[in-house]
Amino acid sequence: LDNTAMQRARERLDNLTKPKGSLGALEDLAVKLAGISGKVFNDFRKKTVIIMAGDHGVADEGVSAYPKEVTPQMVVNFLSGGAAINVLARHEGAEIICVDIGVASDVDHPGLLVRKVKKGTDNIAKGPAMSREEAIKAIEVGVVTAWESIDKGSDLIATGDMGIGNTTPSSAILAAFSGKPLEEIVGRGTGIDDLRLQKKLNAIRKALEVNKPDPEDPIGVLAKVGGLEIAGIAGVILGAASRRVPVIIDGLISTAGALIASKIDPRSINFMIASHVSEEPGHKVMLELLGLKPMIFMRMRLGEGTGAVLAMNLVEAAAKIIKEMATFEEAGVSKEEI
Amino acid sequence: LDNTAMQRARERLDNLTKPKGSLGALEDLAVKLAGISGKVFNDFRKKTVIIMAGDHGVADEGVSAYPKEVTPQMVVNFLSGGAAINVLARHEGAEIICVDIGVASDVDHPGLLVRKVKKGTDNIAKGPAMSREEAIKAIEVGVVTAWESIDKGSDLIATGDMGIGNTTPSSAILAAFSGKPLEEIVGRGTGIDDLRLQKKLNAIRKALEVNKPDPEDPIGVLAKVGGLEIAGIAGVILGAASRRVPVIIDGLISTAGALIASKIDPRSINFMIASHVSEEPGHKVMLELLGLKPMIFMRMRLGEGTGAVLAMNLVEAAAKIIKEMATFEEAGVSKEEI
Repeated sequence: LDNTAMQRARERLDNLTKPKGSLGALEDLAVKLAGISGKVFNDFRKKTVIIMAGDHGVADEGVSAYPKEVTPQMVVNFLSGGAAINVLARHEGAEIICVDIGVASDVDHPGLLVRKVKKGTDNIAKGPAMSREEAIKAIEVGVVTAWESIDKGSDLIATGDMGIGNTTPSSAILAAFSGKPLEEIVGRGTGIDDLRLQKKLNAIRKALEVNKPDPEDPIGVLAKVGGLEIAGIAGVILGAASRRVPVIIDGLISTAGALIASKIDPRSINFMIASHVSEEPGHKVMLELLGLKPMIFMRMRLGEGTGAVLAMNLVEAAAKIIKEMATFEEAGVSKEEI
Repeated sequence: LDNTAMQRARERLDNLTKPKGSLGALEDLAVKLAGISGKVFNDFRKKTVIIMAGDHGVADEGVSAYPKEVTPQMVVNFLSGGAAINVLARHEGAEIICVDIGVASDVDHPGLLVRKVKKGTDNIAKGPAMSREEAIKAIEVGVVTAWESIDKGSDLIATGDMGIGNTTPSSAILAAFSGKPLEEIVGRGTGIDDLRLQKKLNAIRKALEVNKPDPEDPIGVLAKVGGLEIAGIAGVILGAASRRVPVIIDGLISTAGALIASKIDPRSINFMIASHVSEEPGHKVMLELLGLKPMIFMRMRLGEGTGAVLAMNLVEAAAKIIKEMATFEEAGVSKEEI
């Protein structure tokens, strides 16, 4: 991050007609944006949410309330404009890029970016999700997708996911890195009952036993207990960071991708902006590990990038505050008494 | 609230292509909007933030870091477009109405609604802030301002405040209603140091001793330890509720007004939407008393309506979700397995 720009941003914020620091996280965001771009004033001309879609072999363990066919069905829904992310992206003025990075079946739609690394992961309760080479390839898909989007003008990127069963590998990744007891970090995903929750806990326990992921080897963790869309999201984050573009992180699955990205290159954290904290207990733990503070608390647990696009409005608000507010001098307002 | 419309809204939400309840507070908001308007689908054509400005005699006790002259200076700043609320209201597409309900000096500006009930309150550490008649008159100013704004088309209202020293009466109101120890509910307002915090605690303690506010008599509490802009905000809320228009509540001062409104007519709570939770420890307590859940956690503590206008984007998002998302049937997506 550009420390000079951050210092200039903080100085300007302290001269605007409000008590110092009184806009809290909005001010911190303005400073972070300055550090990212090297400029005190920033604006966003093209906001984009990149949705990575992939399937999970572990769905065979009965960890989700939804059948696997919902992954391709929802991809079609994204491309037809009927999903929650479509509504919210339109609302926030963001474009959607949808990538098939690992859906088990083939979706035929002109709007879909088909960059399939593998037709769904293998069942992590029985062995690795994918090979190390596939994990690297999936990360590269994310990097390239982010770069292409940035080349076409995207200057604020949000991450999104689709994949039935994907809170299971996300929780497994968190367990591998944090070592925390599963009971503390595993939640009900789309809203599963007690029976499925037991199956999910068992699947994650087996995944950790069978694969023995090494927290010092993030690509190994990803290949062993991760997912293709999680790898893709890690790649999007690394790609955005390498081009100094801020990237807004969505919920549990996106933040699992962010954890992987942070372990591959810790500097990528500087370019991440946390959006919301979801109902999943593990999400809060992940954000704490990353040292990121979420802004929206709405008990959302949908994924797709829905929380991240809602935060775009706040990021833009921060950029406008530092640019458009009057200083004490300009407005003729008295400063704090000493 | 219209229970039939709320039930129809919940049924529709459960048929949209997402796991039931997975959009959390966004879904609850859509249901609440249906209850308020009696319609499942709602949209907002004119968003308005009403800022009530007034001065406080208790500022003489040294409870704020800013001199009293900042109140009229900031009113001019609001009318010139340079304050934080101006930037954020422009960002969210909201109009600003600024009312002088009790500024100590006279501000001459064509954009200002002058409805001064009194030239600042009297010092609550020494006696009542205002008479009972003045408190009622100030509430009426708020009601009428809300009604006029609604008559001109406003269909989503946010509350805002300006008044140097106004976290002191707001905290006193909370103390009167909650009976909680001052140490738990009094904060640093615009960011005062330890010395001023002691002065503030002493001023509130004296205000409670001298005035003995009766929590069963909300107008008495307001007149004894409140403020003119707090009364005006209570009136805006009651006015909006009486016309079934949703009203977004800002931070500590606005929520003090909401507490007063709720004690005058508990049904008004149904029309309130909480926006953010501020740095002030008392704000969280107030929201709990009202049973309202904030959505934005950004450590803001500026007032003016800044948190409330940021929440407008979320309210609109909720309205669009229920209206624009596809149902499972429309999108051909499989539902949850039983």
